[in-house]
This record gives sequence, structure tokens and C-alpha cells, in this order.
Amino acid sequence: MARTSRRAALTHPEPEEIDLFDVLHALSDPTRMTIVRTLSTEPERACGTFPVDVAPSTLSHHFKVLREAGLIHQREEANRRLTALRAAELDARFPGLLAAVLAAYDRTPEAR
Amino acid sequence: MARTSRRAALTHPEPEEIDLFDVLHALSDPTRMTIVRTLSTEPERACGTFPVDVAPSTLSHHFKVLREAGLIHQREEANRRLTALRAAELDARFPGLLAAVLAAYDRTPEAR
Repeated sequence: MARTSRRAALTHPEPEEIDLFDVLHALSDPTRMTIVRTLSTEPERACGTFPVDVAPSTLSHHFKVLREAGLIHQREEANRRLTALRAAELDARFPGLLAAVLAAYDRTPEAR
Repeated sequence: MARTSRRAALTHPEPEEIDLFDVLHALSDPTRMTIVRTLSTEPERACGTFPVDVAPSTLSHHFKVLREAGLIHQREEANRRLTALRAAELDARFPGLLAAVLAAYDRTPEAR
């Protein structure tokens, strides 16, 4: 089997495939919530630059959970992987949900 | 050791102890969401009467997850256990969160 790419292609669910239970599960972890909160105020960010203190393999797992749940979009550019929040698509699928969750998060000790 | 009660006392977190990540995790399961959705339109319900199709031990586990997350209150009355949604307390802790999650749930295939 020919290996034609450096990494497996990044797959993302279509907006209509986004599952509420996957979204809630993805958001039920403090590291993943920090990633989502960070992305909520900027268009795109390189993977190694998030304010989280976890091992690279753990971080990679968290990005995978968020991507497969439909919360983030990732793309390769040169030797960087860039991540963006799928805020508009999420809000079209589940109006107000992400805003309510982020507002709730901002009331927690973890967000301070 | 004297055994003075039929069951262990039911414990519930105080409103200010309710943890957002526990709440999101508790809501990330279809059976638990069905329980919450059912309780959202009535004051109290006996445990065996929810429209869910799971074994009693599984249902008992789901109630425990919801109770420990602060989403429901349970009390014993005669030989029944009555369950209520802690809607007002949740809304005081995380305004708009439960309403947004339930509105999102009503847009899913599971809710139809």
C-alpha cells in the first residue's frame, strides 16, 4: 500500500451530522473547554499554542474528540496544524447552545 | 453496626457546588437526557415511570449520575422514590444553560 500523505486526512462531520450528545461529551472536559473558549475569541490558532498543560499525545486526543464532535475544524498549512471553532455551523444546528455553555463556563472557578 | 435505614441517604450537591463539567457529562447520554426532558414539564415523578427502555440497575446508575451532578433531586416517600429537576437552582448557577440544552435536544432525531 502506497503511503502518499504524511498523516491521515482530517475528517469532519457535516453540520447536519453533528450529534448533541457528542458535543456535550466533548465539552465535559476542562482541557477541551479551554481549547473551545480560547478559539471563541479568535479565527484560528496553531495547535501547540493553546494555554493548556497536558502532554502532546493527550492534547492530540482532545483535538480529535473535539473535531469528531464537530466543534472544531483543523487544517494543515505547511508544517502547522491550524484549528478553528465551528461556531457558525454549531449555532445553525443548535442555536444558542455554545453561547450558553461558554457563559456558564465563565462563571466557573476554572475560567478565572 | 446497626442498620437503621433501608437505603443509604440520598446526597445532593449544594447549588454552589454544582460543577459545569459534571452537568455536561450527565447530559451527554440519551437516557439521562430523556429523564431530564421528562422532568422539565412536571414537578415530580416516581422512578419507575420514565419513558426509557433500560434495565432497573442501569436506570439506577443514570439517576445517580444526574443526582450527583446536581441536575435532579430525589426523595423517598412511603415505598416510592420521587424525582424532580433542580431547574431553578441550575438556572441560578448557570443562567440559560438548561434551557439551551433542552432546546438543542428538541432539534435532534432522538427527541422526536
